[in-house]
Amino acid sequence: QPEFDEFVQKVKEIVERNESRRLPKLPKGTRDFANEQMVIRERAFSIIADVFKRHGATSLDTPAFELRETLMGKYGEDSKLIYDLADQGGELCSLRYDLTVPFARYVAMNGITSFKRYQIAKVYRRDNPSKGRYREFYQCDFDIAGQYEEMGPDFEIVKVLTELLDELDIGDYEVKLNHRKLLDGMLEICGVPPEKFGTICSSIDKLDKQSFEQVKKEMVEEKGLAVETADRIGTFVKEKDSPKELLSKLKQEGSEFLQNASSSRALDELEILFDALERSKCIDKVVFDLSLARGLDYYTGVIFEAVFKGTTQVGSIAAGGRYDNLIGMFGSKPVPAVGVSLGIERVFAIMEQLQKDRNETTRPTETQVLLGIMGNKSKIPLAAELTSKLWSAKLKAEFVVSTRFDKIISRANDSKIPWMVLVRDRELETGKVKIRNLETKIEEEVPLSAFVDEVKNRLNL
Amino acid sequence: QPEFDEFVQKVKEIVERNESRRLPKLPKGTRDFANEQMVIRERAFSIIADVFKRHGATSLDTPAFELRETLMGKYGEDSKLIYDLADQGGELCSLRYDLTVPFARYVAMNGITSFKRYQIAKVYRRDNPSKGRYREFYQCDFDIAGQYEEMGPDFEIVKVLTELLDELDIGDYEVKLNHRKLLDGMLEICGVPPEKFGTICSSIDKLDKQSFEQVKKEMVEEKGLAVETADRIGTFVKEKDSPKELLSKLKQEGSEFLQNASSSRALDELEILFDALERSKCIDKVVFDLSLARGLDYYTGVIFEAVFKGTTQVGSIAAGGRYDNLIGMFGSKPVPAVGVSLGIERVFAIMEQLQKDRNETTRPTETQVLLGIMGNKSKIPLAAELTSKLWSAKLKAEFVVSTRFDKIISRANDSKIPWMVLVRDRELETGKVKIRNLETKIEEEVPLSAFVDEVKNRLNL
Repeated sequence: QPEFDEFVQKVKEIVERNESRRLPKLPKGTRDFANEQMVIRERAFSIIADVFKRHGATSLDTPAFELRETLMGKYGEDSKLIYDLADQGGELCSLRYDLTVPFARYVAMNGITSFKRYQIAKVYRRDNPSKGRYREFYQCDFDIAGQYEEMGPDFEIVKVLTELLDELDIGDYEVKLNHRKLLDGMLEICGVPPEKFGTICSSIDKLDKQSFEQVKKEMVEEKGLAVETADRIGTFVKEKDSPKELLSKLKQEGSEFLQNASSSRALDELEILFDALERSKCIDKVVFDLSLARGLDYYTGVIFEAVFKGTTQVGSIAAGGRYDNLIGMFGSKPVPAVGVSLGIERVFAIMEQLQKDRNETTRPTETQVLLGIMGNKSKIPLAAELTSKLWSAKLKAEFVVSTRFDKIISRANDSKIPWMVLVRDRELETGKVKIRNLETKIEEEVPLSAFVDEVKNRLNL
Repeated sequence: QPEFDEFVQKVKEIVERNESRRLPKLPKGTRDFANEQMVIRERAFSIIADVFKRHGATSLDTPAFELRETLMGKYGEDSKLIYDLADQGGELCSLRYDLTVPFARYVAMNGITSFKRYQIAKVYRRDNPSKGRYREFYQCDFDIAGQYEEMGPDFEIVKVLTELLDELDIGDYEVKLNHRKLLDGMLEICGVPPEKFGTICSSIDKLDKQSFEQVKKEMVEEKGLAVETADRIGTFVKEKDSPKELLSKLKQEGSEFLQNASSSRALDELEILFDALERSKCIDKVVFDLSLARGLDYYTGVIFEAVFKGTTQVGSIAAGGRYDNLIGMFGSKPVPAVGVSLGIERVFAIMEQLQKDRNETTRPTETQVLLGIMGNKSKIPLAAELTSKLWSAKLKAEFVVSTRFDKIISRANDSKIPWMVLVRDRELETGKVKIRNLETKIEEEVPLSAFVDEVKNRLNL
């Protein structure tokens, strides 16, 4: 007997192993979305698109892949994460890595001099999949290209970011903000040679994850800075305060930042920006932080990053800045630009968690009424006729034909449809159908000839 | 002098040639969409999604690429058009070729037994780009998987197709319809050996582009049919009529179709379907056409294809059918399914043409009011404050700060914004701003303190 049980167990294991081998899989780092998850996503996309449209942006749609040469030389070290298409004859192409470079390519290719666009689309990165990190994910980008009065677009981008996060209603956040030219000036003041600005910025960028001692070690031992230079950097990058406080500190009489051409210009720009943000009533979300450096090479002015406050550290949920040279890299006239990218996957995760915490349920469909007909396939034409009347009235309706009442009821309950029209021969004979409230289970008989209006009444339409 | 002009011309040519060489390009067969085009697309997507939701479908989002093994063996000859991702270590993946196979993979992978979903997404085909044929294009799919009363889902899919085309309002169309099992029966009756059903179906499928003589030649000379067999096929595939007419002809006493198990079952199914379509008031759009065969291998029941009527032949704009074995191919329990796919690119082309013909214009943005401030960058904070008041009131607003009045006006005119709030020092001194109707050019002075309400009144909000 025990031998037999063991034998059965082994057979079962082998069968199951084969089963799972044959069942299809998803590529690593990719996901499907359906039902409730999809409803939450679409709700978020609609909030986001509404904010973008409120600011006069038009939607741009670009191909999922670009010529490889379009992406080359734009992402520094991260280029190794770009997905290439196989060479099957013809052009060499790669999947887009972000939405900024396709936007810049579009502006350059079409000789456009001003453009305010948004794009909500998937991007692709051959990153190591881990919890919360995917190889295919959505980005929501808003960018303004063109020559405008100084800091006008920069203000609007930061404003859009705060509106997005406020309206998504996902908790408290702050926007860390800095200026690339201020960083340049700071490094010059500290005695960093100009050719090392980029690599030292990359080191500074690690300060949100590493201690200053670790970063100092890297700057001194790996990147060859003098210890005093690194220490001077250390005193500056500690500076972090509400925008107007820190700005007036940096502008105090005798401040070295005022002597340096680069940082002095940056401070003038920031003064306008902070005034604008203050009068727009969103400056309380902004922290002026000299340790914010941002990895990407192409930033040339204001840079920022939004992070969640509170216990759960999900890191950066949005980032952006000014990039005045990227569009010109495509051989067209240079067009200054500034933009923000929202990493919506983290936002979804938070929204799903919030919904769970609040014990809210989301219906996967919007169906308002289920037409249930007792009978076999000979009733399909009747179902077609009656449901079509509901559809013609623009009601969201489904039908089910079954000889079993319990099947009809469970279909309605499963998808939480509020109303059911029950069609049975016994009522039909006298020209009647029943309307059932699926929550209260109360049924009322109504004339078949008026059943659409009766449903509409109950839906308050 | 002439030599000099020629020289200048040559230099100009060389410079321009270099310019165009450096300017970025799109991959062949791909496109960007922006502004008015995008507005038309979004309008169409919204109509389509509304129809799908009205029928109780939920939205599914799948990755743009699948494991290569998922796509293999599903598309027959067309597999050569699949885009592969480069092998950069790890799994072998390919861009999706349609939305049906990812849907089937999702159902199989998750052990789902019933599912009504829609998906509006891009698919990828390494086809030869030509006028109206692209390598990246949208498909809009609606599918019902699961065991239901016979022909219920089939009816609903055809109904959805007619609702889509009616509501997109792009002109007269017809839905050609046939049944794979009826074709099988027909071929058996004609004396085609079963192993040749597939290849002969492919020949028949060409009848919309070739004469019967050409197709007959192929069937006899290439595929080895007897001339009499081919001729018998010829008498059947000419049959094309309104559904109920042709059905009753095929069901006449003594009809061979009634003797054949396969075709007799198909005729029973079609009888229910046609009754349902008739009572649903959309049978006048349907033509029962024995020459419709559809290329893809996986169809097992009802098949159909929508084509435009009228002078411009744009060919098929939607197609679909029943495929009861596809989901089971993934090693899960077989789940019967039926669906339709709308080739939306042709719909867009028609909508754009209609709009041109009707001389309609589409605004690229929805901006309701432009805040124009006369001044230099020192006015940016004021612009921020005032525009934020409009945004807080959920108005769609943009701002422009310029020392030149003509620049402000042309900005409004270019994007056809209906209203402008004009802010100048001369009125500001008395606490006033001007509201200008950009169509009538009439200006009215209003108190700055009430300008948001004044704008809302004028927008009837």
